[in-house]
Amino acid sequence: MSMEQELGVLTVSTRGFGFIDVTNELNQWVQEAGLEAGLLTMLLQHTSASLVIQENADPDVLRDLADALQRLAPESHPYRHSAEGPDDMPAHIKAALTSPSLSVPVMGGRMALGTWQAVYVAEHRAMPHRRRVALHFSGTRSLA
Amino acid sequence: MSMEQELGVLTVSTRGFGFIDVTNELNQWVQEAGLEAGLLTMLLQHTSASLVIQENADPDVLRDLADALQRLAPESHPYRHSAEGPDDMPAHIKAALTSPSLSVPVMGGRMALGTWQAVYVAEHRAMPHRRRVALHFSGTRSLA
Amino acid sequence: MSMEQELGVLTVSTRGFGFIDVTNELNQWVQEAGLEAGLLTMLLQHTSASLVIQENADPDVLRDLADALQRLAPESHPYRHSAEGPDDMPAHIKAALTSPSLSVPVMGGRMALGTWQAVYVAEHRAMPHRRRVALHFSGTRSLA
Repeated sequence: MSMEQELGVLTVSTRGFGFIDVTNELNQWVQEAGLEAGLLTMLLQHTSASLVIQENADPDVLRDLADALQRLAPESHPYRHSAEGPDDMPAHIKAALTSPSLSVPVMGGRMALGTWQAVYVAEHRAMPHRRRVALHFSGTRSLA
Repeated sequence: MSMEQELGVLTVSTRGFGFIDVTNELNQWVQEAGLEAGLLTMLLQHTSASLVIQENADPDVLRDLADALQRLAPESHPYRHSAEGPDDMPAHIKAALTSPSLSVPVMGGRMALGTWQAVYVAEHRAMPHRRRVALHFSGTRSLA
Repeated sequence: MSMEQELGVLTVSTRGFGFIDVTNELNQWVQEAGLEAGLLTMLLQHTSASLVIQENADPDVLRDLADALQRLAPESHPYRHSAEGPDDMPAHIKAALTSPSLSVPVMGGRMALGTWQAVYVAEHRAMPHRRRVALHFSGTRSLA
């Protein structure tokens, strides 16, 4: 079967600080495009939010992770870049410590994640935002 | 030469806290599949371990890196998520600060790493685990 | 249109601590190779520098980010690995906390970055270095 590719965009509305599980939306995009096996790559097109793969079982993991990032990039620090509010520069730091891009193999029309893994858009700003995730798939399509 | 792809899994037995060099295993997988030039992407299918590219020369670099991650995610912190032991939530944080997915160009049947680079599975739990790394290659095969 | 790939290397001269914007050089490489739509993956082939996507508007963001990384990996700590100077082990830690590899979708012959995003080579050593970024593109070529 010959290799093909598909480009797309996923738009996600965040509710301020926190993690939005986009695993189902991503698998749905893969299925609706008729993709079967290959590689899905995501790029979050912003610098104060990021992509994180983390545990989908105990929601306390995400709360503790948010707290840990808060301690590593505290709002109380006297940042030079402060015009956009006290949460903005910490958000850039948290985004740099996690990642804007992720790649996940696709098998059988679904992302080949581990049992306990989900893909999250991590919103590091205090206020809700609309975040764009650019998508790229390369691989094979299903026969149907 | 037309583009092809190959999917696979590498299973790694860790010995608790520390870094397992999987560079040779990855290059072996590339060679056994007859892959020549392209892109190798790895996804560690767990949320308390991660993939790290670091120096392969002085082992003290890995010890200092492990200590640094320990300071950034100390076991002594009163985490909400504590039922799986004091090392578990720090392991999730360390995994989020490093990365579950990595992509490395392949040239001449080997990963195009820098001279001093190796690919490590970083085990962030205290006890040994079996860790799965999903593999995806896209590119060209060797003629043989 | 059938999928093709292109491999390359970008060499970047850094000036010691700081961020070098390589967005234009990367887009130029894409254009000169006649690439249209697909995925660009970069691997920085060193362990004391890294790749970072961050804001290209207010340069204070990069200064605050450098300071934050300095606080997370201070030179004053008594590292085991110290023979290469007090800035070397912190550089390895900063490289591990950010990332050596990044993937960005390409559309219309350019990286599909967000409005405020640029790709930087982050130099974590005090002295200037020549840094190599291995490049891989897979996708389609423009018709011209």
